[in-house]
Amino acid sequence: MKAIGQKIWAIAEGYIPSYSTGPEPAMTSHETACILNTSDEIAHVTFTLYFSDQDPIGPYLIDVPARRTKHVRFNDLKDPQPVPLATDYACLIESDVPIVVQHTRLDSRQAENALLSTMAFPASGSIL
Amino acid sequence: MKAIGQKIWAIAEGYIPSYSTGPEPAMTSHETACILNTSDEIAHVTFTLYFSDQDPIGPYLIDVPARRTKHVRFNDLKDPQPVPLATDYACLIESDVPIVVQHTRLDSRQAENALLSTMAFPASGSIL
Amino acid sequence: MKAIGQKIWAIAEGYIPSYSTGPEPAMTSHETACILNTSDEIAHVTFTLYFSDQDPIGPYLIDVPARRTKHVRFNDLKDPQPVPLATDYACLIESDVPIVVQHTRLDSRQAENALLSTMAFPASGSIL
Amino acid sequence: MKAIGQKIWAIAEGYIPSYSTGPEPAMTSHETACILNTSDEIAHVTFTLYFSDQDPIGPYLIDVPARRTKHVRFNDLKDPQPVPLATDYACLIESDVPIVVQHTRLDSRQAENALLSTMAFPASGSIL
Repeated sequence: MKAIGQKIWAIAEGYIPSYSTGPEPAMTSHETACILNTSDEIAHVTFTLYFSDQDPIGPYLIDVPARRTKHVRFNDLKDPQPVPLATDYACLIESDVPIVVQHTRLDSRQAENALLSTMAFPASGSIL
Repeated sequence: MKAIGQKIWAIAEGYIPSYSTGPEPAMTSHETACILNTSDEIAHVTFTLYFSDQDPIGPYLIDVPARRTKHVRFNDLKDPQPVPLATDYACLIESDVPIVVQHTRLDSRQAENALLSTMAFPASGSIL
Repeated sequence: MKAIGQKIWAIAEGYIPSYSTGPEPAMTSHETACILNTSDEIAHVTFTLYFSDQDPIGPYLIDVPARRTKHVRFNDLKDPQPVPLATDYACLIESDVPIVVQHTRLDSRQAENALLSTMAFPASGSIL
Repeated sequence: MKAIGQKIWAIAEGYIPSYSTGPEPAMTSHETACILNTSDEIAHVTFTLYFSDQDPIGPYLIDVPARRTKHVRFNDLKDPQPVPLATDYACLIESDVPIVVQHTRLDSRQAENALLSTMAFPASGSIL
């Protein structure tokens, strides 16, 4: 199968609410980077997190097997360190094979959930 | 009328909640791929579903007549098999004429609905 | 000021809920195409609506003055005919000067609102 | 680090609700332009706001340090003047180094929040 997508993606809006309402883990407030690897090779993906007032943190290492999708919760990232809650961040995503990345947030701070989603920004071809 | 769009699209975020609140079918939790075919020819579209821990399933065959839109609910896909609920998936969409694809989810697990939508990722021109 | 954007855009997901909750008009369920014209010339814009089971309807004529934005509610379109409620549709948007188009829906069928938004698909350069 | 993104972006949908529900400032209705600057240079960014019935206002000057993200609330813009509430607007964003821009709205007019987000439209390469 052909590889679909780009090797560099960016999510500018990152924010994990500090509390949640409803049954865990489905209703826990979370942000997700959904990665699709249609190729026949494993994708070695790295996340680098950017903040407003400190140096970037990373790389976080994530493997996505061939012909698989992986929905990565930022809440679950542990190494090199957990993502701080209630803090503005952004994320640069780099892969050695083309992938597609979509960004979703479930916000359950109040009794009823709110959802957002957007394709991440595919940066290949626009790097200066 | 000229054909608008691309022949290959990807949705990286797929997840159908396993339960719903409110009157069916309008308020049933669902994910939709909205397809627009502005051309003068029928579009023969295939969906291939990707998962985190099993091989891809498909193709699902969907025809979109000339100068028509079709809003395909993933919940309604039956052949070769229904889409599992409460399971992460992604979707590759291929067509023999250019189309436009937009992705929407209605989540009615709680009393009040949540909505998300984004254009799918247009992959033509970025295939390696 | 330079013109920003494209001359052809598409929104594949269209659906105006048939009822609403809350004070009108702010909380009336509606879909909006937000148009930005940064150029020094008036933009003559046409909407063509596509359906699942009937021929397209249009053109709807909309002028956006130079250096202005216009947020067009599909609910307010009257000529050649109103947009049917609770009906799947899609929209092709054409302009004689480059514009930017973003799509938003407010769904107030239930007591608490749901919102979605995405950039429309910029089709120029991908027309076959 | 290489610079990712584009130098010109547009958000066509702007609207800050005039009231809110819930604890401030987290639950205050707001719109945000999330900017990511992955480069090694400070990004000098300007916002220009467009309206439906008056001339554009700006520039608003915003600096984003090297390797940082800044999530700019439109509610907080003060100079040359605050953004009017309950008013349709759009925003042109220009930077001297490539950046990535994502748009988010939290609407807390009702008891339960609604969220929307989309990548802004990257205009570089499509300027006429």
